[in-house]
Amino acid sequence: MSFSVQILGSSSATPTKYRNPSAQVLNVRERLFLIDCGEGTQMQMRKYGVKLQRINHVLISHLHGDHYLGLIGWISTLSLFGRTKELHIYADLRLKKIIQEHFFVSEMKLNFELIFHPLSFSANQIIYEDDKISIESFPLKHRIPCCGFVFREKQSELNIKQSAIEKYKFTIEEIKRIKQGKDITTEQGKEIKNNKLTEPLKKAYSYAYCSDTIYDEELVPYINKVDLLYHETTFAKDLQDLAKEKMHSTTVDAARIAKKAKVQQLLIGHFSARYKDVDSLLQECKEVFENSILLEEGEKLKLR
Amino acid sequence: MSFSVQILGSSSATPTKYRNPSAQVLNVRERLFLIDCGEGTQMQMRKYGVKLQRINHVLISHLHGDHYLGLIGWISTLSLFGRTKELHIYADLRLKKIIQEHFFVSEMKLNFELIFHPLSFSANQIIYEDDKISIESFPLKHRIPCCGFVFREKQSELNIKQSAIEKYKFTIEEIKRIKQGKDITTEQGKEIKNNKLTEPLKKAYSYAYCSDTIYDEELVPYINKVDLLYHETTFAKDLQDLAKEKMHSTTVDAARIAKKAKVQQLLIGHFSARYKDVDSLLQECKEVFENSILLEEGEKLKLR
Repeated sequence: MSFSVQILGSSSATPTKYRNPSAQVLNVRERLFLIDCGEGTQMQMRKYGVKLQRINHVLISHLHGDHYLGLIGWISTLSLFGRTKELHIYADLRLKKIIQEHFFVSEMKLNFELIFHPLSFSANQIIYEDDKISIESFPLKHRIPCCGFVFREKQSELNIKQSAIEKYKFTIEEIKRIKQGKDITTEQGKEIKNNKLTEPLKKAYSYAYCSDTIYDEELVPYINKVDLLYHETTFAKDLQDLAKEKMHSTTVDAARIAKKAKVQQLLIGHFSARYKDVDSLLQECKEVFENSILLEEGEKLKLR
Repeated sequence: MSFSVQILGSSSATPTKYRNPSAQVLNVRERLFLIDCGEGTQMQMRKYGVKLQRINHVLISHLHGDHYLGLIGWISTLSLFGRTKELHIYADLRLKKIIQEHFFVSEMKLNFELIFHPLSFSANQIIYEDDKISIESFPLKHRIPCCGFVFREKQSELNIKQSAIEKYKFTIEEIKRIKQGKDITTEQGKEIKNNKLTEPLKKAYSYAYCSDTIYDEELVPYINKVDLLYHETTFAKDLQDLAKEKMHSTTVDAARIAKKAKVQQLLIGHFSARYKDVDSLLQECKEVFENSILLEEGEKLKLR
């Protein structure tokens, strides 16, 4: 029952000797989602043991190179390694043309289908939903059309305790009622409370991804009370004017949004190449929002 | 007076944990040429201390992703780091459209001009020439249009020995004649042989790059007697049939071409991801052509 996020790239526009452009893998109960795919993402996956073929959904926040230039190489590798399962891409629809143009000139025929899901940059929308998770996109304010994403795990159904199954030999009808949270009356007329029969419910987690964006309180309703918020912190707080001009955020911007949205934890990244050491950026966040963290590339944060 | 080649990527189609896609930097007397630019080339440049901005000419052999997908990211970085000097790109002209499409959707305006020089895939042609070097492209046989390149250093002019300058106080006319290789007669009627007045000429080196190609004897005239031949060796000799089918070369193919072209030295690369250790590939080459080498990524071979 995983709920974890692994950072593959934490650099902003240009990579450094130590940091790669944006890419993350979210694992929700063994469903893997790739969020952004900067240049070199497939090498990072190799380096950190991500199983390339297990990813079936890729979300691209926007078409700045540091968020998508690794996509074509990764897709080629998937095909060369024999993938036949379709791959879903959630992105600005213009990416479809870019990808098609590449495979046209390279005369490479993929062994699997790419299914494009165009993002809306003017309103929020549910872009994916299954029995375990829903994903909503929402507009971010950046220099070009850009989306954030919020992943909400669904509450898993009640599981009946093994001991209760053995003791009471429930009928199918009773099992259904118990899983709905109802109490049960035995043949002897004894009422048994549902919580005696079922395992305690596991918490359903949520994760929001906001990169790239200027400080924008309008995104608070979309990310309200998530368990983990990734918010870009391209610049330290002394570069507030530059952040505004480039439509990026500072450490303090991200921390203020985290506070306003009452999230549990703030994860930062998308660091400008000017910072060799980024610990001071984390400290600036903590001054405003104590529960802030950063991860080294390759590191994984397990919420469960 | 450098003449060196540095390997930034030695993998074929897909990168491995240890090898990156094709890219090399050739340094001819401090003129730097980037040959192919697979995904991650800019990161490799950072890692191995290549000065990004010193490269003014990029040659792309063909439009398979492992030979060009690093180009857009590297160009973006050049611009973000303040480049204003024009950059020359020698490639299939369709690359121009791909690059333009990227900068259109990313709404990024470069601070410098990209100058495209379309390659011919049907005949050899001189694609670059200055006072120090000429570069000729020639067709390779691969699955899509593909070029090889041969870099020929020009013979440097004769340099007059410092001691002779001090002793004879030559006129401008005399200096011109000496630099042309002529002997000199002093006012006293004494003839002085040119080789007494000038430094010995430095050897002019040549380098040929052949990736990707099937075994093809038609390329021998283009690379005849070069000092260093880079020839792809995607496969070991036992995969001859696969090499033919994929229009790539084996170790023995490359070594036979090196032998037929009477080159001084063979440098191999573009190794299939199936080979973790590539020393055995080098051994197979050496059995046919003794003076074969391979370089680790980041390593530089200095001919002078």
